[in-house]
Amino acid sequence: MKNEEWKMIEKHAKAWTLEAAELLKASFENTLTITYKSHIADLVTNMDKAIEKFFIEKIQEMFPDHRVIGEEGYGDDIKDKAGIIWIIDPIDGTTNFIHQQSNFAISIGIYENGKGKIGLIYDVGGENLYFAKDGEGAFLNDYELPRLDKASLSEAVIGVNATWVGPNKRINHENVQEIVRKSRGTRSYGSAAIELAYVASGKLDAYMTMRLSPWDFAAGLILLNEVGGIATKTDGKPIQLLEQNSILAAKPGLHEELLGYLIK
Amino acid sequence: MKNEEWKMIEKHAKAWTLEAAELLKASFENTLTITYKSHIADLVTNMDKAIEKFFIEKIQEMFPDHRVIGEEGYGDDIKDKAGIIWIIDPIDGTTNFIHQQSNFAISIGIYENGKGKIGLIYDVGGENLYFAKDGEGAFLNDYELPRLDKASLSEAVIGVNATWVGPNKRINHENVQEIVRKSRGTRSYGSAAIELAYVASGKLDAYMTMRLSPWDFAAGLILLNEVGGIATKTDGKPIQLLEQNSILAAKPGLHEELLGYLIK
Repeated sequence: MKNEEWKMIEKHAKAWTLEAAELLKASFENTLTITYKSHIADLVTNMDKAIEKFFIEKIQEMFPDHRVIGEEGYGDDIKDKAGIIWIIDPIDGTTNFIHQQSNFAISIGIYENGKGKIGLIYDVGGENLYFAKDGEGAFLNDYELPRLDKASLSEAVIGVNATWVGPNKRINHENVQEIVRKSRGTRSYGSAAIELAYVASGKLDAYMTMRLSPWDFAAGLILLNEVGGIATKTDGKPIQLLEQNSILAAKPGLHEELLGYLIK
Repeated sequence: MKNEEWKMIEKHAKAWTLEAAELLKASFENTLTITYKSHIADLVTNMDKAIEKFFIEKIQEMFPDHRVIGEEGYGDDIKDKAGIIWIIDPIDGTTNFIHQQSNFAISIGIYENGKGKIGLIYDVGGENLYFAKDGEGAFLNDYELPRLDKASLSEAVIGVNATWVGPNKRINHENVQEIVRKSRGTRSYGSAAIELAYVASGKLDAYMTMRLSPWDFAAGLILLNEVGGIATKTDGKPIQLLEQNSILAAKPGLHEELLGYLIK
């Protein structure tokens, strides 16, 4: 696909995202005014679906040959990576949307034949747009994000949820505890898209979690790739775009160091 | 002290906080422009001290009979709770200040003979001012925060750092793991002041941590008190204002439920 066409896709992806964000904000500003929080649980279910449908209708109208995967399941049933695929999470961080009305994001990754081309994570509450385009760099709003420097665990702030620090079915929690102890500190924000954007922008040095779906990480991987961040499964193997995966995303050097704790 | 005098204290506390926030933002905007992040570690040390001195000078000039406790130690050496005491953290969440340039706060609690009168937590990056005045309610910017509803663990989002979920010297981590498993989810932001403000504003249902100093919690306790939040040590005993304490802050009902897990 030609550069001009990707410029058009970029333009529309950004415009639709900002439009969707306004719908989200307006919806809960109304609800907050009327009932504060009691009806937000119903609202979020409706808004998740409405925003996904909004994107699918726009994409089908403007780019009829593109396919869409969305968390809510209104997209295409996709088994292969051929052509252009939009991978969309209309509200990443649903619990935060309900409880906080912040720390949730719209996440869109656009892939061509399995290669990440455009990644876009919009932190709606913070009004921060993380955007990356294959080979053209990554941006936080108008600010171009620098390449990530190497980091070591003792100076690192790690995004990891407490779930993985206690006994669980997916990873040896004692290895995770060792990482926690040897790090400078840990954080957990409850939105994988935002946490991946934080790694790409250096706000976190690494992020690890044990089960994400394609719409949770599709955009984040493209951002990371543009700034030299490393992302694999927590066993060091490549992430499979159309499957559920564990994710270890980190600065160079630190990724290798963390793998040393996770796969011993 | 008369109501009029407290209005004057409130006015100045707010104005000085916003002024200090501008100093903080300007300082790292300059640094970001020049060197991005490499010199921020030096900067933060200087800014912590500079902001504390800024407050102390303002307070001594305007209210010469008030005393001040600050994290950086430029305040008074205070052993008793008599009179009016300002308890100040110039940058709560120093690691976030360095790594993220967000999720850090200025925290000010003003006490009269040990009773909380004015609490102020300013989330500098988010430009969110949490403010409470004894008997007059709590506010997030212009929005009056509602009284906290009762909550139960299964529907709760708990602020707790991964440190307390693994083996540690301060609490039985298996009890904390049980709380993590039975909650809806956990978060960790790396700023006690912000996490207490989040409980007061309903963004978190509870927050627990094992060692905070007076400047970390002095403002948060006043906010919580105005919205019906409960705060004790994690063993259920009263918090001692001038000492290091563990803290369990939560919505009504949930506080009791969490204590049931922590003190068995």
